[in-house]
Amino acid sequence: MDNNLTMDKLVALCKSRGFVFPGSEIYGGFANTWDFGPVGVELKNNIKRAWWKRFVQEDPLTYGVDAAILMNPTVWEASGHVASFGDPKMDCKKCKQRFRADTLVENHSKGLVSAEAMTNEELMQYIEKHHICCPHCGGFDWTPIRKFNPMFVTSRGTLEDEADKVYLRPETCQGEYVNFLNVQRTARAKVPFAIAQIGKSFRNEITPGNFLFRTIEFEQMELQMFCHENDSMNFYSNYKERALKFAEDLGLSADHLRFHDHDKLAHYAKAACDIQYLFPIGWQELNGIHHRGTWDLSRHQQYSGKSMLYLDPFTNEKFLPNVIEYSIGADRLTLAILCQAYQEEKLENGETRVVMHFHPAIAPYKVAILPLQKNLSDKAKEVYSLLSKEFMCDYDEAGSIGKRYRRQDEIGTPFAVTIDFDTLDDQTVTIRDRDSMEQIRLKIDDLIQYISSKIKFN
Amino acid sequence: MDNNLTMDKLVALCKSRGFVFPGSEIYGGFANTWDFGPVGVELKNNIKRAWWKRFVQEDPLTYGVDAAILMNPTVWEASGHVASFGDPKMDCKKCKQRFRADTLVENHSKGLVSAEAMTNEELMQYIEKHHICCPHCGGFDWTPIRKFNPMFVTSRGTLEDEADKVYLRPETCQGEYVNFLNVQRTARAKVPFAIAQIGKSFRNEITPGNFLFRTIEFEQMELQMFCHENDSMNFYSNYKERALKFAEDLGLSADHLRFHDHDKLAHYAKAACDIQYLFPIGWQELNGIHHRGTWDLSRHQQYSGKSMLYLDPFTNEKFLPNVIEYSIGADRLTLAILCQAYQEEKLENGETRVVMHFHPAIAPYKVAILPLQKNLSDKAKEVYSLLSKEFMCDYDEAGSIGKRYRRQDEIGTPFAVTIDFDTLDDQTVTIRDRDSMEQIRLKIDDLIQYISSKIKFN
Repeated sequence: MDNNLTMDKLVALCKSRGFVFPGSEIYGGFANTWDFGPVGVELKNNIKRAWWKRFVQEDPLTYGVDAAILMNPTVWEASGHVASFGDPKMDCKKCKQRFRADTLVENHSKGLVSAEAMTNEELMQYIEKHHICCPHCGGFDWTPIRKFNPMFVTSRGTLEDEADKVYLRPETCQGEYVNFLNVQRTARAKVPFAIAQIGKSFRNEITPGNFLFRTIEFEQMELQMFCHENDSMNFYSNYKERALKFAEDLGLSADHLRFHDHDKLAHYAKAACDIQYLFPIGWQELNGIHHRGTWDLSRHQQYSGKSMLYLDPFTNEKFLPNVIEYSIGADRLTLAILCQAYQEEKLENGETRVVMHFHPAIAPYKVAILPLQKNLSDKAKEVYSLLSKEFMCDYDEAGSIGKRYRRQDEIGTPFAVTIDFDTLDDQTVTIRDRDSMEQIRLKIDDLIQYISSKIKFN
Repeated sequence: MDNNLTMDKLVALCKSRGFVFPGSEIYGGFANTWDFGPVGVELKNNIKRAWWKRFVQEDPLTYGVDAAILMNPTVWEASGHVASFGDPKMDCKKCKQRFRADTLVENHSKGLVSAEAMTNEELMQYIEKHHICCPHCGGFDWTPIRKFNPMFVTSRGTLEDEADKVYLRPETCQGEYVNFLNVQRTARAKVPFAIAQIGKSFRNEITPGNFLFRTIEFEQMELQMFCHENDSMNFYSNYKERALKFAEDLGLSADHLRFHDHDKLAHYAKAACDIQYLFPIGWQELNGIHHRGTWDLSRHQQYSGKSMLYLDPFTNEKFLPNVIEYSIGADRLTLAILCQAYQEEKLENGETRVVMHFHPAIAPYKVAILPLQKNLSDKAKEVYSLLSKEFMCDYDEAGSIGKRYRRQDEIGTPFAVTIDFDTLDDQTVTIRDRDSMEQIRLKIDDLIQYISSKIKFN
């Protein structure tokens, strides 16, 4: 990450280069929603694929699912979300804006105070002691803190005049819990095993979002490891390490990552930890690893009347599995990767180039095809056709070659292939490396193998 | 497709093999929602990837986006969905169940009548003339037909006591229209160009869903081609051909596919066509290709006040682009592919094997690793580690080898690798082909290249 990077600068780059646009922008936007543009959608999809490869494809203990967003409403009674899910909210009496009290405290403490498990009284004491003012109008005239359930509610009627409440899921993991028996049975899985999912969740967030950091709809990548209590702390430690390694392997630097163990736990939890990343807005949660005990399966057992007990075929022990959860937001991880990749570099000629140093595996385009002159575009399109069978490619024939390199640097394309007049004679091209800016000459026939070998995520 | 295939049989296979489970099943399900299990999630993801590869990655004229599901509510006023979107619904007075009148007509006519553009009066006349009874109780005592807006509505409050209506998008394509200017500008795209998206949409459907055919949340794969009016009929024809070719290339048989041109068009449309597939429930719409004229951009221009005019840099003509839409449901296509792949085959020993003949590119697992005996599992796991870096693999060491082959046939795994005692000596394995059941001997070192060469989607 560049020391000069601010969130405003990143947002500007994302908007101008097609990473991310404000949601419904032509209508003045829609609070805390963002649309991924042509470059951003590739980046985010590649990040999701890298996660799935690492945690599902390569892990013989893990099975994927893709559960519906709209679930039977009883799920949210079992999970506790209907009765007690809620964020502590307070309104500024002066300007009428609403804020999350825990976010005010966390921001004021620059992430040092973990407000998640504080009671409303503790939050209010902290706010008064530190005289935290309204971020909108600067006033200090707060209503009391109240719970505000952030689940979006809609309704569905199938019989005349009957309407049922339906919730947009506020978390994806319930899709794994309700399918625990289905997956175990059909995959003939033996405990310990995990179920993983990537999917959208929704929360009626009112806090200013800090770009992709907090949005009202967000995509989670998470897995639930079902295991015997005796193994549970091992899995908990194991996923802490694996989560950190994944973040580092994607390119997040070790000195911008840290564990943050929770002091205060939810009543059912046995241990909980975040991995925090040093965003331009400070240290903030990147992902969580939670030891949830038997809470989830016991609740669903109680509310559904279906036994969730597992009979171990080796020991003959019958038990309710413990759950270790590892959850990371795809949007938030995308934001971290955008921040990390950004670099302003002084060139020898005094100019500055902005480069997005993405890991090649997640770079939006793997290669740009650039004809040196317009009358080389037939040959260039031939190369595009060849390479686009294998990789996401960009094609650009407008402007000087220097400007075109800069554009590719700003969207993080690891390789640029230049087609020149020698190409017509000897079927070779120049390939330029984004990071070193070094150029080598390669045969067109060798391009696929060369690029393939450089973009693996292992 | 097998002549013996019924929807019930397919649902049973999907539930028992981990393709698809009823949504929220432990709570008695949730009408018209389905969860993709470990095998189904891979199938559906592979189908989405194949579509994206064909229509985005390999097409230099097409740019992807991923827009938010929750959009500024004005979008749905501009699109006409708030005022006039709605399905014609009628209730059975006897059993109080609600039905879509157009679906009743289409089902009764076995898809021969296109009820979409019929007026309520025409629908009622048809129902009375053909005496279409309630599918639930068999009665014939209908209420009049009324419009019922199938948009899910929720609300969002950011200021105290203020709540705004928010809709779950009933179609993804508005995400392209509102980003037309953003994509054009950031990609420096020249008309003609297309914007593509894969994402979820929601409709409060009350019609019985026929498994994945019609669900209240569904994933669309669609693109909007923005072009000059003079080119528009060419693009319309072109996308008809490309859509058909895509369906065939994925394995749907030509004699189960047909074009169905619409006689009656929406008031703004210039042409419209479905591709229908012969499901076990009859000929039904698989995807649509629609010539939408300038309707969409003109409406957004009007409601947003932003000019959507395009200045052609070559001709200097300023015009509002026409839109050709190609849209296909990922869930519905998954259903078609499940139907097509299913085959019951008589074996020489008199037994029947069920095989899912998926195109290898979309098969959930590419290869299964099967140790012949349990004491070969160390070597087998070594092979699994090697192959799972490249492909989704299954691992199975339980039961006779014959039974394990049958299981892989039923989930459509194109290759099964058997580890035997010779493997320990000479590092070779047996690899079995799902379709021919033929087996050959290969070196472990050659497996990745062999399998890679057989699973391409081009």
